[in-house]
Amino acid sequence: MIKGEQLYSGKAKTVYATNDPKRYIVKFRDDVTAGDGAKKANMKGKGYYNAQISARLFKLLADNGISTHYIKMVSEDEMLVHACDMIKIEVIPRNIAAGSIVRKYEFKQGHPFAQPVLVMDYKNDAAHDPMLNDDIAIALGLVTEKELRKIRKISLRVNDILKQFLGDRGLDLPDFKLEFGKVDKKIVVADEISPDTMRLWRKGTMESLDKDVFRFDKGDLLTTYKEAAKIIVPEIFK
Amino acid sequence: MIKGEQLYSGKAKTVYATNDPKRYIVKFRDDVTAGDGAKKANMKGKGYYNAQISARLFKLLADNGISTHYIKMVSEDEMLVHACDMIKIEVIPRNIAAGSIVRKYEFKQGHPFAQPVLVMDYKNDAAHDPMLNDDIAIALGLVTEKELRKIRKISLRVNDILKQFLGDRGLDLPDFKLEFGKVDKKIVVADEISPDTMRLWRKGTMESLDKDVFRFDKGDLLTTYKEAAKIIVPEIFK
Repeated sequence: MIKGEQLYSGKAKTVYATNDPKRYIVKFRDDVTAGDGAKKANMKGKGYYNAQISARLFKLLADNGISTHYIKMVSEDEMLVHACDMIKIEVIPRNIAAGSIVRKYEFKQGHPFAQPVLVMDYKNDAAHDPMLNDDIAIALGLVTEKELRKIRKISLRVNDILKQFLGDRGLDLPDFKLEFGKVDKKIVVADEISPDTMRLWRKGTMESLDKDVFRFDKGDLLTTYKEAAKIIVPEIFK
Repeated sequence: MIKGEQLYSGKAKTVYATNDPKRYIVKFRDDVTAGDGAKKANMKGKGYYNAQISARLFKLLADNGISTHYIKMVSEDEMLVHACDMIKIEVIPRNIAAGSIVRKYEFKQGHPFAQPVLVMDYKNDAAHDPMLNDDIAIALGLVTEKELRKIRKISLRVNDILKQFLGDRGLDLPDFKLEFGKVDKKIVVADEISPDTMRLWRKGTMESLDKDVFRFDKGDLLTTYKEAAKIIVPEIFK
């Protein structure tokens, strides 16, 4: 697989073409941003941990019958993926109230939801990623009603799988972000699943092992991500 | 029916107890506010027009089998209603893009939606009425899943009825707000349906016959509401 031209560069990842038009390479960079891009840093090794954690969790999903864009790692921080048409929606399954849902509504930080709460945001930097509902997502032409049902179903299933896996390893999963793409009309989980896009708390303590450490200056991010990696992908430390 | 103590006073209406605990009196005041309370005025006669228009539209809904809180007018600007437990959700059925949905997303003012778009906001002044989705509304304990389905169904039916009635009278209905209450567990349409809570445009022209005239200083509000009343309740001018 030959890495080709850069197709897209986001806040923390860069996507490259390959010699196969149906395959892309995603590089996890060491950049970290928070607050809609207001806070920025670069930490050597952060891309590596996120790539390895994402790869492990994509494999976990595949083992449980969930289609993802992940094919294999091609270097320590680069992933070969299926080329997708990305759906411009961020889906956030929430199990415990934290972050924006606490600020916007009346939930108390740490409040466990009786059932998972799905929130969908419109991935649109210029509009500052406003929250969607089903009718608006359809009116914007982002998805069909049928695709929305599918996305909701996959999201809840992914949430169950991750909650179980992380729970078995002593971690709570308050919330995380999912993005979806289409490969030949089939909807697959894409983007990443890493401490950049999840809230991970040591079980029962609300102690963050995720980007909140950077957002709220709670400690050294790299040490934290290494901790998370030791729990989620211990094999890379052998 | 004897008017009792004041129970609640909102931005444009005041609710009073009566000698029957199952009946309230709603007075439509001449106050008008916009922009989350930032802009205020008082216009003699405004409450009268809103009360008469609301009464006419509640009667229209009742004639079409929709339960509302409306019983009868007890003065020119006072309505006798069933006492309700109010549901803290504002439902906004949208037929044509206007106002906040244009500012928040990428819709063009005047864009007709292929199918009605329902938006629900949390009626909570302190939180500035944030938008809800179904999962959040349920997690907040505002409604059950079954009640949400019922509210959605009633809202779409009310939208059809109002669109037809107003369309026959040369008016477009870009959007309007509905509130619901419970009377002995039964969900009924409550609050008001007036130019304070609807967008009304002369068909095909985007010319406002509603509170946007006040919001955006497009003319004299009282003249505008009188125009709307002449179209919707011509009988009060005879």
